Amino acid sequence: MSDQNPVFIPGPTNIPDRLRNAMHIQTRDHRAPDFVETFAPVLEDCKRVFGTETGQVITFPASGTGGWEASICNTLSAGDTVLVARYGMFSHRWIDLCQRHNLEVQVIDCEWGSGAPADLFEQALKADTEKTIKAVLVTHNETATGVKSDIAAVRRAMDAASHPAMLFVDCVSSLASMPFHMDDWGVDIAVSGSQKGFMLATGMAILGVSQKALAAMETATLPRTFFDFRDMMAANASGGFPYTPPLQLIYGMRESLKMLLEEGLDNVYARHFRLAEGVRKAVEAWGMKLCAQSPELYSDTVSAIYVPEGFDSNELTEHAFNAYGVSFGIGLGEMNGKAFRIGHLGSLTDVMVLSGLASIEMAMADLNYPIELGSGVRAAQEYYRATAAANQ
Amino acid sequence: MSDQNPVFIPGPTNIPDRLRNAMHIQTRDHRAPDFVETFAPVLEDCKRVFGTETGQVITFPASGTGGWEASICNTLSAGDTVLVARYGMFSHRWIDLCQRHNLEVQVIDCEWGSGAPADLFEQALKADTEKTIKAVLVTHNETATGVKSDIAAVRRAMDAASHPAMLFVDCVSSLASMPFHMDDWGVDIAVSGSQKGFMLATGMAILGVSQKALAAMETATLPRTFFDFRDMMAANASGGFPYTPPLQLIYGMRESLKMLLEEGLDNVYARHFRLAEGVRKAVEAWGMKLCAQSPELYSDTVSAIYVPEGFDSNELTEHAFNAYGVSFGIGLGEMNGKAFRIGHLGSLTDVMVLSGLASIEMAMADLNYPIELGSGVRAAQEYYRATAAANQ
Amino acid sequence: MSDQNPVFIPGPTNIPDRLRNAMHIQTRDHRAPDFVETFAPVLEDCKRVFGTETGQVITFPASGTGGWEASICNTLSAGDTVLVARYGMFSHRWIDLCQRHNLEVQVIDCEWGSGAPADLFEQALKADTEKTIKAVLVTHNETATGVKSDIAAVRRAMDAASHPAMLFVDCVSSLASMPFHMDDWGVDIAVSGSQKGFMLATGMAILGVSQKALAAMETATLPRTFFDFRDMMAANASGGFPYTPPLQLIYGMRESLKMLLEEGLDNVYARHFRLAEGVRKAVEAWGMKLCAQSPELYSDTVSAIYVPEGFDSNELTEHAFNAYGVSFGIGLGEMNGKAFRIGHLGSLTDVMVLSGLASIEMAMADLNYPIELGSGVRAAQEYYRATAAANQ
Amino acid sequence: MSDQNPVFIPGPTNIPDRLRNAMHIQTRDHRAPDFVETFAPVLEDCKRVFGTETGQVITFPASGTGGWEASICNTLSAGDTVLVARYGMFSHRWIDLCQRHNLEVQVIDCEWGSGAPADLFEQALKADTEKTIKAVLVTHNETATGVKSDIAAVRRAMDAASHPAMLFVDCVSSLASMPFHMDDWGVDIAVSGSQKGFMLATGMAILGVSQKALAAMETATLPRTFFDFRDMMAANASGGFPYTPPLQLIYGMRESLKMLLEEGLDNVYARHFRLAEGVRKAVEAWGMKLCAQSPELYSDTVSAIYVPEGFDSNELTEHAFNAYGVSFGIGLGEMNGKAFRIGHLGSLTDVMVLSGLASIEMAMADLNYPIELGSGVRAAQEYYRATAAANQ
Repeated sequence: MSDQNPVFIPGPTNIPDRLRNAMHIQTRDHRAPDFVETFAPVLEDCKRVFGTETGQVITFPASGTGGWEASICNTLSAGDTVLVARYGMFSHRWIDLCQRHNLEVQVIDCEWGSGAPADLFEQALKADTEKTIKAVLVTHNETATGVKSDIAAVRRAMDAASHPAMLFVDCVSSLASMPFHMDDWGVDIAVSGSQKGFMLATGMAILGVSQKALAAMETATLPRTFFDFRDMMAANASGGFPYTPPLQLIYGMRESLKMLLEEGLDNVYARHFRLAEGVRKAVEAWGMKLCAQSPELYSDTVSAIYVPEGFDSNELTEHAFNAYGVSFGIGLGEMNGKAFRIGHLGSLTDVMVLSGLASIEMAMADLNYPIELGSGVRAAQEYYRATAAANQ
Repeated sequence: MSDQNPVFIPGPTNIPDRLRNAMHIQTRDHRAPDFVETFAPVLEDCKRVFGTETGQVITFPASGTGGWEASICNTLSAGDTVLVARYGMFSHRWIDLCQRHNLEVQVIDCEWGSGAPADLFEQALKADTEKTIKAVLVTHNETATGVKSDIAAVRRAMDAASHPAMLFVDCVSSLASMPFHMDDWGVDIAVSGSQKGFMLATGMAILGVSQKALAAMETATLPRTFFDFRDMMAANASGGFPYTPPLQLIYGMRESLKMLLEEGLDNVYARHFRLAEGVRKAVEAWGMKLCAQSPELYSDTVSAIYVPEGFDSNELTEHAFNAYGVSFGIGLGEMNGKAFRIGHLGSLTDVMVLSGLASIEMAMADLNYPIELGSGVRAAQEYYRATAAANQ
Repeated sequence: MSDQNPVFIPGPTNIPDRLRNAMHIQTRDHRAPDFVETFAPVLEDCKRVFGTETGQVITFPASGTGGWEASICNTLSAGDTVLVARYGMFSHRWIDLCQRHNLEVQVIDCEWGSGAPADLFEQALKADTEKTIKAVLVTHNETATGVKSDIAAVRRAMDAASHPAMLFVDCVSSLASMPFHMDDWGVDIAVSGSQKGFMLATGMAILGVSQKALAAMETATLPRTFFDFRDMMAANASGGFPYTPPLQLIYGMRESLKMLLEEGLDNVYARHFRLAEGVRKAVEAWGMKLCAQSPELYSDTVSAIYVPEGFDSNELTEHAFNAYGVSFGIGLGEMNGKAFRIGHLGSLTDVMVLSGLASIEMAMADLNYPIELGSGVRAAQEYYRATAAANQ
Repeated sequence: MSDQNPVFIPGPTNIPDRLRNAMHIQTRDHRAPDFVETFAPVLEDCKRVFGTETGQVITFPASGTGGWEASICNTLSAGDTVLVARYGMFSHRWIDLCQRHNLEVQVIDCEWGSGAPADLFEQALKADTEKTIKAVLVTHNETATGVKSDIAAVRRAMDAASHPAMLFVDCVSSLASMPFHMDDWGVDIAVSGSQKGFMLATGMAILGVSQKALAAMETATLPRTFFDFRDMMAANASGGFPYTPPLQLIYGMRESLKMLLEEGLDNVYARHFRLAEGVRKAVEAWGMKLCAQSPELYSDTVSAIYVPEGFDSNELTEHAFNAYGVSFGIGLGEMNGKAFRIGHLGSLTDVMVLSGLASIEMAMADLNYPIELGSGVRAAQEYYRATAAANQ
């Protein structure tokens, strides 16, 4: 009966009933007026979540990886140079994608647990006197390490270098959960998906695209059809889709945006911070360490936690699943075996988080981790009590 | 977003997705063969849950209160005497129902927190030399106090008195959660409902009826139509219903019985005991007391817990709801203000129970209860760890 | 795959997705504020559907039969006289219920296919100089014969006789589908259910009760508990329920009322008339006859149709189900074998009705009925075309 | 209330409740064993639907267009030549996609309404003495014209030319509805999707890939990441996915395959033929013409129907939607304005088809089409009667 337990993977996230129902629709004609009336506000309201007024929102029936590919294919040409820092699994994969698409990838390797190195970006951009770098690629929230990078700082670095490169940001696991300001940060393409902060099923890549990025389409020669911005925008302009749209997800997005805007984006962010902070209090009480190297890097959507020397994090997550029916994120890439992850984003409450903490504590105790049973829960309880709306 | 938190009221219980989907059907013709094929096995499989081979299962689209009324109306006549012990809100209400239906009710008042007084029943039955008592009414699980009574002992008392009275048992909040043996215990009518151990929506009263009770229909003169056993049995015999059946609940029951029998009734009971025992460990750790007076009375479906002198349990449950979005049972009747209740029946996991314990702990701490925050959770964690299948 | 075909039984009706989703909720605490906020408007909005401002709405988790029983038990005493006309299966069953509850039932037997005989009522009431008749019971829409009675005429008859009897009306299969004016017609109790015009699952009896009927509670001595108005009203007054409420249906009612009021009751009635009229055009084209004896008696929710001499209507409905997977109503009581019924109420469109007509036509042709294949469909098409909103 | 009417677009198709429920699941951990146990049989059972034992099934969270792109990117390199016949919108679009991906496309232009020209393919292949043609691309069911092509004949032509080119087939709107024999026909890549014969939501591209096509991956240099076969196969091999899988669709596919195999593929095909044939009888009765030029080309999943000279098919479909709330396919490309389409695939019954025919007939009559109202319905009724299982 464990399918009633929440999941604590960093996405796809627990889907609230309201959104499951919204996606539970019968087939409708996507060429009928009803579709237009549903889809247009989705694109419009998404802009508020991205924090853009001048940009455009484009969606594809795909995962976040598809979103990355779309960002590249529509704006770049084989042989173009991009600048990327690698500090986790997802930044690593984006690099791989660029390389497979025949881009020159200038990689800045950073320690996992650190964030986007604005200073090194600035150096690299200043060094690029020929302006061959066409785009800087940054992972806003590195899901593998639980690190949130400072995008505003990257923008400042680019400006300081007076470099015309575009700024592409992966915000798959941060959008609609942590503040994102596309226009203010000068982001040219922001890539997200339906299955994280939007609390929906997987299947829709959601991109915010600046006018500058749109202009780059004109000269970009990487091949694309499924992911072509122009086809999509042309069809969208009249309320349509260039191929069969993912109807259920679009109706789900309509409702998800209503939920987010009803709660208020600032409240959504505050809720994520509060839930995350409770998890961090627990980690501290256990005497364990986050992968994220310093507090300003702490992600509010996922915490990656080092297990003590001599323990295998895979054994821990496997045991938590087998003994208690609760799913946590495994350590990815370099972190595999060394860290586990607690996803705390999307539709979640303090009470649900406490059940996750209680479960992983039991699992750790079962495996003789040097922790005091109940200590993490208690630390989180203290924090949640102090910050509960009804108690303030 | 608190609608994702489990409820800890002692029913209706949390509905698993599998059963919500089973009830989520479109209208079908209840006179079509498909209905017959669905309904007949429901009646048959229910017998296994009641523990009867010789009895008959009869359902009505009503709540448990309707089931009580059906049990009375079909077997008794105005002026008949029934013997009942009052030791909680639900035994009290059944008495009230009998009185309103013009029965002579011989009440044995017991302390709330105690169970069915087999010895006093025996005395009363022995004293009834004229055999005017037609039925003994017992609440198997008194939901108000969290007390489980010993029905076998009541049967022994009746046998010791060689009394021919029928034995009616309210098992609304025990059936499909704690062992019930209708035939072995000589129960003549057992009354239950869809919204507790069967994990469904409210709306179906489910009765197990012995041949002796069926025979009593012949002479019983209390008026009845909606709740008439004969109409229902006659219609059921050909796979039908005497009026519009509650289709969704019947399809739900079909699936619920599959779930229960797949898990195995003994495993279902063991699961309920384990979850309940964890709650009891927490209560002990808090230094609080159950309403149930002794361990053999402890209910595995609901725990009623006294709050310390000077505290108001209503304030506690209200605060838990307002501050953390979690529902617990309030104290009923005599217990109002003095006790709160944790429902732990139906579709529930250890992890979900821990979230309930963590929540009520926070609420108690907020209201300055003399408990150590985290202590109940830890005690339950210890117990759940020791008894987790994967750890044994 | 025939479960995608609509049903054409006269209830339970096809449930629109919007209402299935509304009922597809997880368990919530019925003692929590959210429930109060949902339930109170249900009772209030139901008044608009009943057409009452001075009356009270009372619901029970039961079928319409339970609603009948509630109306009797709360207002009458054993030995009281009621006046009823029998002109179909449902008026017959209500009579039976009264007799079982020890009422004196003065029956006026009318031909099936006729409606409530206002003139005979007037005679009977005038003859009752002792005013022993406590209530007149009328079936507004006799589902067995497809006859709608003139309740205003019954009220005029009662007034002409200056008789103080109460007027009870069964509007199970008419409410929310055909005009109903409780206050204007001086109805004292109107009995309906969730599974017809409200387009929900079966399981909630819904009653409109006048102040006069409420006053009658004070002296009525028929036993009642589950169906007690006072318990229900007392609990409802504070937003509660005297026992476990049928949560899913209450949330469903909330949404159903929204749908009905959004469409507008007059539009709802006009839609039902239009759909019914199309069916009647088809019947005419087939050269067949309605059971209802004259146009002013035609029901807009169900049509009962005589099969030609020498044909067995049961064979027809059975064949329609087996060959085409479509359910129609069988002939009930006197009509069994002689008539079949097409239900055309609830959530239905002209297009759906046409599929029903096409199916039963095929079934009739298969059984060598003397009809022209396609003729009924064409007649209905003509009518629907002429009355389609977009064509006017 | 028209959302209860079936849609008659040629996909996405009407989703049966069983599959809507199957997709209505809560988030589960896609790295947990439950996922592996669900996904592996999906891939395996899909092979039966494709008709392959030696091939491999690969899925992507994308639409059919994504499937086309995947077929090209994984097996070809810029500058490679492909041979394609254009005889409808979808063959046209596939050509466009190839061109955008820098392939040399040798186009054989055929009249719309014809099918794949095996003879012209044979000529072209024989003429290609250098064997520069790497792949022949064929649309099995041209959804724009309702034309089903003879893939076996294409294979024979290729064999007759002894040409080593691969054979790629778009079977998006034919698979699981009309016979498909991948191995027998020597198909190297077959591209389909979730939203047609599989009766699910849009969002999953489903490909059958031969060993020869897999081998071509080794030398193919078109860039790909999201659509990379190797990444997907490597992850699938251990039950995983290279990025977040579309969980709901995978669970839906599991159930869809169960439904299809329970019904039996041959019965599924026979059902589609019967439903289609009824539509064709109606078209004939109306005195109208199919776009498909000859009976052996008639598609069993969609019929494209020419409107008479002087009429605008767009006006017709728009009016059918506005007046009756029923969606039909518009004419695409060359057919726009000249033809409308009736989709008759997926989860559909004869009764549902009749409602579609009745609706479009009304719409045609409203617009003064020279048809006899009811004639098409009657013709289809005759055919459905004659072929109803219960009548044979």
